[in-house]
Amino acid sequence: MTKVIHGGDIYQYSGKMIDFSSNINPLGIPETAREVLTGDWEHLERYPDLHYASLREVIANFHQLDADQIIVGNGAAEIIFLMGRLFHGKKVLIPMPTFGEYQEAVQLGGGQVEIVYRKNENDFALPMEEILDRLHDVDGIILCHPNNPTGGLVGEKKLFQIIERTGQLNKLLILDEAFIDFAPDPARVSGKKWLIDHPSMLIIRAFTKFFAMPGLRLGYGIGSNQLIERLKEMKMPWSVNSLAVEIGERVLFDSDYIQRSRKWMEEERTFLYETLSKFESLQVFSTETNFILCKIKKKNLTAQILKERMIEQGILIRNASSFSGLDESYFRVAIKDHENNKKLCQALQGVIQMVSFDE
Amino acid sequence: MTKVIHGGDIYQYSGKMIDFSSNINPLGIPETAREVLTGDWEHLERYPDLHYASLREVIANFHQLDADQIIVGNGAAEIIFLMGRLFHGKKVLIPMPTFGEYQEAVQLGGGQVEIVYRKNENDFALPMEEILDRLHDVDGIILCHPNNPTGGLVGEKKLFQIIERTGQLNKLLILDEAFIDFAPDPARVSGKKWLIDHPSMLIIRAFTKFFAMPGLRLGYGIGSNQLIERLKEMKMPWSVNSLAVEIGERVLFDSDYIQRSRKWMEEERTFLYETLSKFESLQVFSTETNFILCKIKKKNLTAQILKERMIEQGILIRNASSFSGLDESYFRVAIKDHENNKKLCQALQGVIQMVSFDE
Repeated sequence: MTKVIHGGDIYQYSGKMIDFSSNINPLGIPETAREVLTGDWEHLERYPDLHYASLREVIANFHQLDADQIIVGNGAAEIIFLMGRLFHGKKVLIPMPTFGEYQEAVQLGGGQVEIVYRKNENDFALPMEEILDRLHDVDGIILCHPNNPTGGLVGEKKLFQIIERTGQLNKLLILDEAFIDFAPDPARVSGKKWLIDHPSMLIIRAFTKFFAMPGLRLGYGIGSNQLIERLKEMKMPWSVNSLAVEIGERVLFDSDYIQRSRKWMEEERTFLYETLSKFESLQVFSTETNFILCKIKKKNLTAQILKERMIEQGILIRNASSFSGLDESYFRVAIKDHENNKKLCQALQGVIQMVSFDE
Repeated sequence: MTKVIHGGDIYQYSGKMIDFSSNINPLGIPETAREVLTGDWEHLERYPDLHYASLREVIANFHQLDADQIIVGNGAAEIIFLMGRLFHGKKVLIPMPTFGEYQEAVQLGGGQVEIVYRKNENDFALPMEEILDRLHDVDGIILCHPNNPTGGLVGEKKLFQIIERTGQLNKLLILDEAFIDFAPDPARVSGKKWLIDHPSMLIIRAFTKFFAMPGLRLGYGIGSNQLIERLKEMKMPWSVNSLAVEIGERVLFDSDYIQRSRKWMEEERTFLYETLSKFESLQVFSTETNFILCKIKKKNLTAQILKERMIEQGILIRNASSFSGLDESYFRVAIKDHENNKKLCQALQGVIQMVSFDE
């Protein structure tokens, strides 16, 4: 089995590098978390609560759900890998390009992946007819909402159609909302309002990206009591560390941090999207989250070459050609703080001009 | 599937409780780790290295092995759950009583468990004849070394016999050495010296217990390049958090902490074993690690009743009757610092006398 290629592999590069390849909130770890980090360390000398009762209660309160509907994990990654096991001996439909770990998790879990493609000419929207049709022949579907790496949410009407159809057919619906906190109105666009009608829907969420702590590893799953119970039975014990528990419980209700993040997001998403859209040599896809997919329209410039030239400028971007459904002309950049976003645009301009000069 | 019952479930109990149910070094987190804990938190704002190259290098140096022979995990628990997948569609022999997660991990991995029993009348030694005989009909064996909850190491001669036999028959040999750092001479008694002769041997180790940081989650596996590669292919990404990486790299060579721990261990193991052995109503099993298994010899006192009475004294012990192969008369206690060990003995004496008085 070949392993998925990830962004954020900054450990390969020596020297100081601005990392646009992984999609982390540039505001950094919230102050509320830092209080825990300077506190005493007694909690590290104990095993975490095997049931994570207190953390699950906090998350349930946040979503106005029952704690029995929550499972916590070692990053969203653990929930994704547990999810894969739900498809043991089964078939699942995955619209691509999308996050590569779904396929790996399903294959590791002993399931089979069927693919439909989102297409450039449709702005990478979901191919709804094909999906609704093929749902009959599979046991479930995995949707990334908003989609990594293309950036768009599943529109409300489309999402409702898929929820309705999978509900009627009693198919599993996996909705990965790891990036939804960066969307304009997460509570409104989330699939969670339909949870009550769909006992086979699993929503995956992350603390990692929005709260800027990918090193700490914390994610969770939301679903019906029965579905969450099935996942818990397959879970290894103590996978979430005590520090992640302590911090997770504090940051979720940090409304100051959340508001500042939204403000940054709205301003910088607009700025970076509009600036990149002015590049004649780029096709830029509209985004509802904190990263932007671009296609290079110059024949003699691949994403790999661009990446290498940008590294020379001290900037790491994500060559997106490893996503099934994209070719060597695609790259992805995170939206960072204003200073860094400007640096990104300047460096891109310089590199692209240089390449034009070479022609 | 029924989940394993664990010690250390102190979250159930309100108030201050001395926890003898989980087996953690009472010296607490090493000073070398505390330096990291008061440092800056930038590393939490980055994803951990997907390959954990630096940490694996440090561990490899410690054991004088290659980094390719090391896989790191979210506690020894993750290595155990990965190990379970090696037995997919296969049969594995497990001598019991032992740590319950092996069986759960194998069953989750899609394998089948065969049991042989260690017996009280043989001081819970491995039933060697039966093991060597039954090895022909299974695909591997899992040994806990030293064994949880009975406390003994596999003797060198026996271990060599099993290594030789599994090697000849090309069977998997899993050696869980999570508690070996508490044994008198870990480097000498470890199975690692035979790694070079046995490409299908996996040794599991933990930072958790010896370095008193179960909340941080760090363990690892050691084996041949090929076996480690197979495990890596099944592993989810980023399962070890960045703080565990930073601390793990520092504590492994903290010789001051290691020496102080050994000194404590030798003194307190002798003290607690000898003191408990004087209780007429207890059968106490000799131990080579940091916990002691006891059997209550009074008919009207079960481990569960003893546990409840001890909780009233503010002390949590481990009712060991949930281990397959033990009955309701067994309990396990961790070896802690001298003050707490004395408190344990006094409280036990009081409770047992009270029960005698009730008779």
